[in-house]
Amino acid sequence: METRIDTIKDGTVTTPRGFHAGATAAGIKHVGSDKLDLGILFSQEPCVTAGLFTTSRIKSAPVLLCQECLKKGRALTVVVNSGCANASTGKQGLADAAEMASLTAKAIGVDPEEVLVASTGVIGQRLPMERIREGLNHISLSDNGGHELARAMMTTDTVPKEIAVAFEVEGSLFTIGGVVKGSGMIHPNMATLLCFLTTDAAVEPAFLHEALRRAGDISFNMVSIDGDTSPSDTLLLLANGMAGNTPIVSGSPSADLFQQALDRACVHLAKAVARDGEGATRLLEVTVNGAKSRTDAAQAARTIVSSPLWKTAVYGRDPNWGRVVAALGRSGAEVEETRLDVRIGEILVLKGGMPQPYDESDVVWVMERDEVPVTLELNLGTASATAWGCDLTEKYVMINSQYTT
Amino acid sequence: METRIDTIKDGTVTTPRGFHAGATAAGIKHVGSDKLDLGILFSQEPCVTAGLFTTSRIKSAPVLLCQECLKKGRALTVVVNSGCANASTGKQGLADAAEMASLTAKAIGVDPEEVLVASTGVIGQRLPMERIREGLNHISLSDNGGHELARAMMTTDTVPKEIAVAFEVEGSLFTIGGVVKGSGMIHPNMATLLCFLTTDAAVEPAFLHEALRRAGDISFNMVSIDGDTSPSDTLLLLANGMAGNTPIVSGSPSADLFQQALDRACVHLAKAVARDGEGATRLLEVTVNGAKSRTDAAQAARTIVSSPLWKTAVYGRDPNWGRVVAALGRSGAEVEETRLDVRIGEILVLKGGMPQPYDESDVVWVMERDEVPVTLELNLGTASATAWGCDLTEKYVMINSQYTT
Repeated sequence: METRIDTIKDGTVTTPRGFHAGATAAGIKHVGSDKLDLGILFSQEPCVTAGLFTTSRIKSAPVLLCQECLKKGRALTVVVNSGCANASTGKQGLADAAEMASLTAKAIGVDPEEVLVASTGVIGQRLPMERIREGLNHISLSDNGGHELARAMMTTDTVPKEIAVAFEVEGSLFTIGGVVKGSGMIHPNMATLLCFLTTDAAVEPAFLHEALRRAGDISFNMVSIDGDTSPSDTLLLLANGMAGNTPIVSGSPSADLFQQALDRACVHLAKAVARDGEGATRLLEVTVNGAKSRTDAAQAARTIVSSPLWKTAVYGRDPNWGRVVAALGRSGAEVEETRLDVRIGEILVLKGGMPQPYDESDVVWVMERDEVPVTLELNLGTASATAWGCDLTEKYVMINSQYTT
Repeated sequence: METRIDTIKDGTVTTPRGFHAGATAAGIKHVGSDKLDLGILFSQEPCVTAGLFTTSRIKSAPVLLCQECLKKGRALTVVVNSGCANASTGKQGLADAAEMASLTAKAIGVDPEEVLVASTGVIGQRLPMERIREGLNHISLSDNGGHELARAMMTTDTVPKEIAVAFEVEGSLFTIGGVVKGSGMIHPNMATLLCFLTTDAAVEPAFLHEALRRAGDISFNMVSIDGDTSPSDTLLLLANGMAGNTPIVSGSPSADLFQQALDRACVHLAKAVARDGEGATRLLEVTVNGAKSRTDAAQAARTIVSSPLWKTAVYGRDPNWGRVVAALGRSGAEVEETRLDVRIGEILVLKGGMPQPYDESDVVWVMERDEVPVTLELNLGTASATAWGCDLTEKYVMINSQYTT
């Protein structure tokens, strides 16, 4: 079986066939600003759509609307704004989200029930409906519009985050594209802040949902920037079937490759989110091997990558690996200290729970890289997990102490 | 029943009868420095002792030693050092902790099995045994030595944290004293970093343990500075019985007052830890009322007080209460958004899940206080909890990116 998956240069969410997007500066972030803050993603054919949403008990109005919409049928459009999350806004917020769907449906000539809504920004404020109404009239869709959409979703993100991958099975060429935004309030549980994925493959609904859940678990659910799960987390995957294949089902020849390509796209976007964490200067990668269960491995890796003390140590190029061990200890994962090995990069600093002699300058050298990897061997089982995060800097504090005011 | 509990001016851990303490600059933090870093707390009479320790799966050598010691019998001495945690140090660390107990026993003429050991500082480094051996010869104990002990325990703490309270029951006067250290890696679970409490009351062992557990649950276990639970967390309560009373047992006339006085001392010390959090400028207080269970209330209050986004908002005097709601949502506590009320200080900002009109300058005024209180009414039950923390500032990052190097 051919297993080659190619990353497409300058690929984005509109790279798969039949997807169009566009965006405008509606003045939601700042009145009169030329920053893009309202966008639309549209499929010219009906889609099978899967979604994963925040596990927070407080869900934003758009999340509640999306969940309803996905129960009913086949969404083919997503409208998204940045600058206002439309969360903690009560009934008014639900009405505003529904109106945003209706206005979008009218602007592009689809059914309101086919429109998914996503919003990101300040919590507890109403959407400026007049500006959204006006803005929607100024969006023109194009098959290269994914790049504009990626920018319209950004809040404190410093770079747009996009990808497309392609692979071939039995003579059919499939493409998966995606855009993501997220920089703070990132500690997803089921999804990242906002991520839209598209594919021209025809996929059977149950397998599409299962594949998205699997890809989310090893990518966005393994990223943490500040431990704050958002009420707006939304991960959508739209499959419009324009590749003309027989729908991919679980166990079919193309299912495995589709999963691999989806995993590749999601891990790429998740790492891009971690790397662009608010104020971040470096990417942290923590791998836990030899755990009793995948849950243990994931919990340990996520806890370490979220530890403010390890995050500040990395920022300071300080090889204080005791903080990694301390975070492991409190993670809840089963650990036997006398079996534990820890590596910073390739350098063994702890073996069987005993500190090892090493040249400190070697470790400092690892900590100066753009990506700082730590590997823990628990030696208790066979499960593994990798988590990503970023260092904690003065700039994170600066950004977040001056967000609404 | 007389319920008056007095806080004693300049009270400390040696205020209760029969307790002595002293400290020295042994050069553990920095060779040749005159900073106190090694201390002893001693009771002239045998004690009933209760202890609570970290729930981390990685426990420091001193914690393991204390747990063994408390199983065996009646400790009457505590030796403590700062500058090195003696954690993640393997068998060598256990041998060093045991030797530290032996050396202390020899220096003051007690049995090694009566000595409890506590260490705080860098994880993954050996104790400098030669300096500890030498230092122990230079400690002189006095009944006013609690103040020195409080300083010898400090790491990044900026102020020593001490208290003593007194109360009378049926003609007997009882005193409870305490010292605590802790400024970073503070998110205790069962105990705070290092806290030693003393009392001259005679207390039956089972009740002493139960009273300490209760006091710990509403004080140290409700403090978070950075979410990082330490492998060294230790909370000890030594009762030497020198008040000459019949031992206090559960349900006796003095039990309730003893619990109240112990709660008072622990909450005072816990708030002092939060206020002195690394880099902190303000104390955060979060109260959750109307929860279905105490567990829900505590989990919600702790999650909000730990949220980096709320912590940075408070630092920036930014009334971004949406971050409080977001943290509540992800806390795991049962929440119905349409029943939720939120107050910043006395100002109602959310009622029944609907944002309320308020004068932003009023909220900013609350946020400029030294103590910033937030109150949430879940309106689902009758359980309440209060948690304390501190704001997150550039200085926290600065302190922690330059700790070992």
